[in-house]
Amino acid sequence: MSPPPARGPLPPGSVVGILGGGQLGRMLSLAAARLGIRCHVYRADEERPASQVAETTTAAAYEDTAALDAFAAAVDVVTYEFENVPGETAAYLNERVPVRPSPAALHICQNRLREKRFLADAGVVTARFAVVDSLDMLKDAIATIGPPAVLKTRRGGYDGKGQASIRQAEDAEAAWAAIAGRPAILESFVAFDCEISVIVARGLDSETVAYDPARNIHENHILAHSIVPAGIPDEIALEATRLAEHIVTRLDYVGVMGVEMFVTAAGDTHLSVNELAPRVHNSGHWTLDACAVSQFEQHIRAICGWPLAAPARHHDAVMDNLLGDAAARWPELSAAADTALHLYGKREMRAGRKMGHVTRLYPLSHGGETIQPTK
Amino acid sequence: MSPPPARGPLPPGSVVGILGGGQLGRMLSLAAARLGIRCHVYRADEERPASQVAETTTAAAYEDTAALDAFAAAVDVVTYEFENVPGETAAYLNERVPVRPSPAALHICQNRLREKRFLADAGVVTARFAVVDSLDMLKDAIATIGPPAVLKTRRGGYDGKGQASIRQAEDAEAAWAAIAGRPAILESFVAFDCEISVIVARGLDSETVAYDPARNIHENHILAHSIVPAGIPDEIALEATRLAEHIVTRLDYVGVMGVEMFVTAAGDTHLSVNELAPRVHNSGHWTLDACAVSQFEQHIRAICGWPLAAPARHHDAVMDNLLGDAAARWPELSAAADTALHLYGKREMRAGRKMGHVTRLYPLSHGGETIQPTK
Repeated sequence: MSPPPARGPLPPGSVVGILGGGQLGRMLSLAAARLGIRCHVYRADEERPASQVAETTTAAAYEDTAALDAFAAAVDVVTYEFENVPGETAAYLNERVPVRPSPAALHICQNRLREKRFLADAGVVTARFAVVDSLDMLKDAIATIGPPAVLKTRRGGYDGKGQASIRQAEDAEAAWAAIAGRPAILESFVAFDCEISVIVARGLDSETVAYDPARNIHENHILAHSIVPAGIPDEIALEATRLAEHIVTRLDYVGVMGVEMFVTAAGDTHLSVNELAPRVHNSGHWTLDACAVSQFEQHIRAICGWPLAAPARHHDAVMDNLLGDAAARWPELSAAADTALHLYGKREMRAGRKMGHVTRLYPLSHGGETIQPTK
Repeated sequence: MSPPPARGPLPPGSVVGILGGGQLGRMLSLAAARLGIRCHVYRADEERPASQVAETTTAAAYEDTAALDAFAAAVDVVTYEFENVPGETAAYLNERVPVRPSPAALHICQNRLREKRFLADAGVVTARFAVVDSLDMLKDAIATIGPPAVLKTRRGGYDGKGQASIRQAEDAEAAWAAIAGRPAILESFVAFDCEISVIVARGLDSETVAYDPARNIHENHILAHSIVPAGIPDEIALEATRLAEHIVTRLDYVGVMGVEMFVTAAGDTHLSVNELAPRVHNSGHWTLDACAVSQFEQHIRAICGWPLAAPARHHDAVMDNLLGDAAARWPELSAAADTALHLYGKREMRAGRKMGHVTRLYPLSHGGETIQPTK
């Protein structure tokens, strides 16, 4: 059974089903509420942030077909807040109710090898890579691609998990052990000037809009700061948003995607795509406070078949993630001027855990000097 | 038993209890969620908007002491989204958990006579008024105050309900019948240039902040549009915000209040206070989209003992209420540029019912010409 054909936008009062109960699902629920759209969260673990603000929650395994049937019957469209939802779950639901972004897009984006091949087919520049399914293949790949390189599991990695650096050929064994011998790819290390991301949206009517690129600064492989404007030349910013729009169009994608890119100084091309996140993205949280319509509302608009909103920015912004006990700074942060504090309702302040974020707003610089993150 | 003394701000994860389940409670819940504050709605009727986004709901009568006991035990502070909460309910809860704004402030603001007397004591100009408890008293009052005048019930009126106009002495009987002979006051009609309101907040530490005054346009006694800036001289705008700050200070108030005022051309005084709303207010909805921190977050900050945020405005704004089937215009409104659409999750589109609002944003005019509402 195929999903019924789309017939105009889902009206207010419709129910969006969200797979996953973390902070991205929470911010999606809050954005949906503004539009009179109700949310039903389906979560397989104890993550509570989304359930605190959604009208309904189902807590069940992603393989529980009875729970999935009931969920599909209770919602008008399904989306997801993370790309590690089992592909089978998305496909099962899509036979009953539209899943957006599509299971086909999820299938590609949740596997680094498929993603790299899709990007190559689409004519998008990425790091050179090789398939690695054994230690011997890894050694061959290092011989071809050469160090420095990064070994990455094909599935399930995020925030630096499932990755190992290779600085010299002798690192092969240790790297292979570090990722527990899982199916992987080896990527050549990209010598980049900076890392940026573009939050792009594509509507059910194929319209695309992209927010201004953000410059991202990672610490311990976890996003620490996003800065807008990114401090890159206008023509590269334009190239980045066009590239992101090209990618979602080629994927026949519906919803918001985060496209991570490296800006490189060398060669004819300026941009190398690092990773696609088929969902709202941490590097787009600044849109909550610096734009009339955030990435979260944009995603809800897209998957519900509503018109997309203009992505114009009314402030420059610096977003700082609050990891672990950095969230204990809330009294000071709540008193800071021109600072929007967002906390995710997580009870336990574990090291490295994303507890919230703050966005500091500045008058528009119109592409002038670069703003520095707070130390 | 008195409530425990305030000892610093309530931390994230604390629970705010909200009396009332309408759209104001909904927008308070959404604002609280941003700060990691959880909400527990207590509602006595079928109003669902707040429950859709709050973590917990109690549906029980305001006189149900067992339900109130359980509610008080489950929350860290109580607030309310409308002033017609029974005073006894607020007082009962305040013996168990802090109620903010205080039951004393509620007691004054939920009765027009007490409110007028409080304002007179505070040296605030209002319309002349007289107490009316019988038809004879009404006739005497008309003789003293003279038509035109407005007869208003002392309690429970809103959006023009519980009011009757008196254009000539002969209208007395009809007006008395129109308000069903309830305890009332007669107010002289104020010949005003325009009506404005100030959304003012006072923190637990006695700090006050006020948003810029909005000019309000009513249709059929219901707020239709709020426009910021109000198009009044700067010195009157300043006088209005000072007056609002004076009122909340005199009341030892904690939270957000909407202060409605008439701007009059005649006489030495420019401002006459019409009404106090001890809560977030419809004429402050524009702050959601035109300010870094909205009236809703400001209220949550105040009642939780957090620092208040600067009320600076980054856009001029026109807020249009969506009453009844005006909400059916959502497809067109969602496609309009620079327009933020808010829908309240109400199922039934009844005539005159507040279904949502839109805020149109404009670049800051710095006090220039006045913006007109859409027709």
